[in-house]
Amino acid sequence: MTYQEKNREALKEELDRLLSIYHKSRAKGLSLDLSRGKPNGEQLSLTDGLLDLPLLSEGARSRDGIDCRNYGAFDGLSEMKELLGEIYGIDPARIFVGGNSSLQLMYDALARAMLFGVPGGEPWVLEPGRKWICVVPGYDRHFRVTEEFGFELLSVPMTPDGPDMDTVERLAADPAVKGIWCVPKYSNPTGNTYTETTVRRLVAMKTAAPDFRIFWDNAYAVHDATEQGDTLADIFALAKEYGTEDRVLYFGSTSKISFPGGGVAMVAASERNLADIRARVGVETIGYDKINQLRHVRYFRDGKNVREHMKKLGKCVREKFDIALTELSALDGCGIASYTNPRGGYFISLDVLPGTAKRVYALCRDAGVILTPAGATYPYGKDPEDKNLRLAPTYPTSDDLRAATKILVLAVKIAALEKLLASEA
Amino acid sequence: MTYQEKNREALKEELDRLLSIYHKSRAKGLSLDLSRGKPNGEQLSLTDGLLDLPLLSEGARSRDGIDCRNYGAFDGLSEMKELLGEIYGIDPARIFVGGNSSLQLMYDALARAMLFGVPGGEPWVLEPGRKWICVVPGYDRHFRVTEEFGFELLSVPMTPDGPDMDTVERLAADPAVKGIWCVPKYSNPTGNTYTETTVRRLVAMKTAAPDFRIFWDNAYAVHDATEQGDTLADIFALAKEYGTEDRVLYFGSTSKISFPGGGVAMVAASERNLADIRARVGVETIGYDKINQLRHVRYFRDGKNVREHMKKLGKCVREKFDIALTELSALDGCGIASYTNPRGGYFISLDVLPGTAKRVYALCRDAGVILTPAGATYPYGKDPEDKNLRLAPTYPTSDDLRAATKILVLAVKIAALEKLLASEA
Repeated sequence: MTYQEKNREALKEELDRLLSIYHKSRAKGLSLDLSRGKPNGEQLSLTDGLLDLPLLSEGARSRDGIDCRNYGAFDGLSEMKELLGEIYGIDPARIFVGGNSSLQLMYDALARAMLFGVPGGEPWVLEPGRKWICVVPGYDRHFRVTEEFGFELLSVPMTPDGPDMDTVERLAADPAVKGIWCVPKYSNPTGNTYTETTVRRLVAMKTAAPDFRIFWDNAYAVHDATEQGDTLADIFALAKEYGTEDRVLYFGSTSKISFPGGGVAMVAASERNLADIRARVGVETIGYDKINQLRHVRYFRDGKNVREHMKKLGKCVREKFDIALTELSALDGCGIASYTNPRGGYFISLDVLPGTAKRVYALCRDAGVILTPAGATYPYGKDPEDKNLRLAPTYPTSDDLRAATKILVLAVKIAALEKLLASEA
Repeated sequence: MTYQEKNREALKEELDRLLSIYHKSRAKGLSLDLSRGKPNGEQLSLTDGLLDLPLLSEGARSRDGIDCRNYGAFDGLSEMKELLGEIYGIDPARIFVGGNSSLQLMYDALARAMLFGVPGGEPWVLEPGRKWICVVPGYDRHFRVTEEFGFELLSVPMTPDGPDMDTVERLAADPAVKGIWCVPKYSNPTGNTYTETTVRRLVAMKTAAPDFRIFWDNAYAVHDATEQGDTLADIFALAKEYGTEDRVLYFGSTSKISFPGGGVAMVAASERNLADIRARVGVETIGYDKINQLRHVRYFRDGKNVREHMKKLGKCVREKFDIALTELSALDGCGIASYTNPRGGYFISLDVLPGTAKRVYALCRDAGVILTPAGATYPYGKDPEDKNLRLAPTYPTSDDLRAATKILVLAVKIAALEKLLASEA
């Protein structure tokens, strides 16, 4: 029987029972964190070899003879481009290797577009009514960047196939709409992968803005948590069919392959965009850290080894997903929540009874369980239905994750019961 | 007897003699590079220990218990701030640790000022007639950044005491003048250090723009090439006296302490500026590479060790300076050139007969000696007197440097003789 089907007495009784358990849990003074997509120590240890790699034994020179201790190789070592090309399935010639952060490369690309425009376009700062498409629920840091640059953020719902493309196409007919954020594989937080039809429609659609850009953040390209991972269509190949390769800026990093904050980031782009990136970034820096690139190529050697490594990482993530999902299953049949069962990536997306996500967050927080703030998965941090929560289950230990999810389940039920009782009153 | 004192016949004879030597040199097909301030292999080897440092033996945690393999420590490890504080003689609490490039931190600071303004100010992009003060001769990459952001570049001559402060003060009375580039110690390329009076005047002067900024690029803070190095006044202490601490953005990096492109960069600033930097950069990235920070602090430990290391580096640089200066002394008494004898930094600045720098560059290039392009030390790459050349003697071997400087000396003389003969004709 769902909560909605229960009578008022039964709901009150259930609420009292759950509150008593909740208060006991709360009294334990826990301190658990499900808020950010961070690997745990076990995952990190899988690449500890990167830390102690003796670089000098093989010399600090790149394959092309570049002394990685000195200036040079401005847009990246050729073997690093090759490795990234194998990871993302793209032509190494399209790749510009950056520093440690793909988010920073996205921010930089937007900052340049703001001040100088993209090739052939006007600076976006000259478009006071500029707008940006955000797939919801989505990644808070993406939304924050475009908010910072003064874009009006337009929400488009995520569907199992990717963004609702009818809405995206309608919005792209407005010349003030300059682009869209995409996490196309194991999307943050819903965990689904865009279908080929969706990818095709993104590159095929008419955009009123000739300088429209797809920010393609393939953060979880090789982050399968199941034997048979999802397959993402090759956006550059499809874009080529429609002559829209300039529309795509493709970002990635090894942050969740090697070390978060200690990895290597990249942007891949059409020849025209790449020429612009090289020219502009050439004013900004003499070059990024090649020594870290050298470590990564010496350690991983090739894409096959990366995939072997990602199988081990995926197993760690799967374990955590399973623990969280087992606990969340206590919500099944209550009619107050639904949650994703992701095949990869880092997150579980939980929809609670509309109007209760903030209350769930607060109940968890007061019991020592930190969630990503309710609303974070929406532009401006405002979930219009106040229902979505993003769970990041990788960081805590298995025991902590179990304890935290139990409290979360309690909080979801309590908040729902409170809401149902209040609306009936 | 100077060239100017010689008669036409003597000049012609000298030119013929020198051209014959030049053509013999040219026939050798040399390939020598004095163009960029890059350390050579011997210098780089002095910090090879950084490459093979076994991080895991001491654990990958920072002093504060942060796992450097994971996200966290957004504005830098506290021990990295301490080490940088010792290197630059500034309060670690003022320091924001960045990535591998101080140039990039400067570019970012300018990009943010363009789009958002500095604290309390309007975005600089709204000031269409924005201007920037450039001390000349100076650093081409600095000039290029402000050119990229649409500033009109105003040249101010370098004096032995630093920039000509009368001119700087006059220019700062224009509200469109938003800032100044400074390499205050062992300035690039003149090698001199700003006096305390100059530093004081920079922070004490009235600026019509309330959001005027001094970009203080202390790139050669500990880069003495003599036993008794220069001492640079503490700009933050002086600024405090005048209540102008917000005027100063202080940049540095270990690029020429450890590895160029593989070091750690920082910006130091007042509390108000620092709060702004943290808030804005917090949108841009989750954090910079802490593992490289950890390597640097584990390797150098403290400022004393850095200074010991810099003595060794300084010796390498001194050797190269001496070789170049010995060769350049062949110009003494000709009345056609003057050059600096720097006490530190990376460069020798050479002034040739006005109107001949480009010709010297071309003569050198044709004989296989690459110099920094004539004009590069001036805004827009245009030296109004066509006389300054920047020599970067560190990268070549001693023999190559000797050979290259000999050709340079020949070229300076030949170009001067051509010029004198042409003007007499």
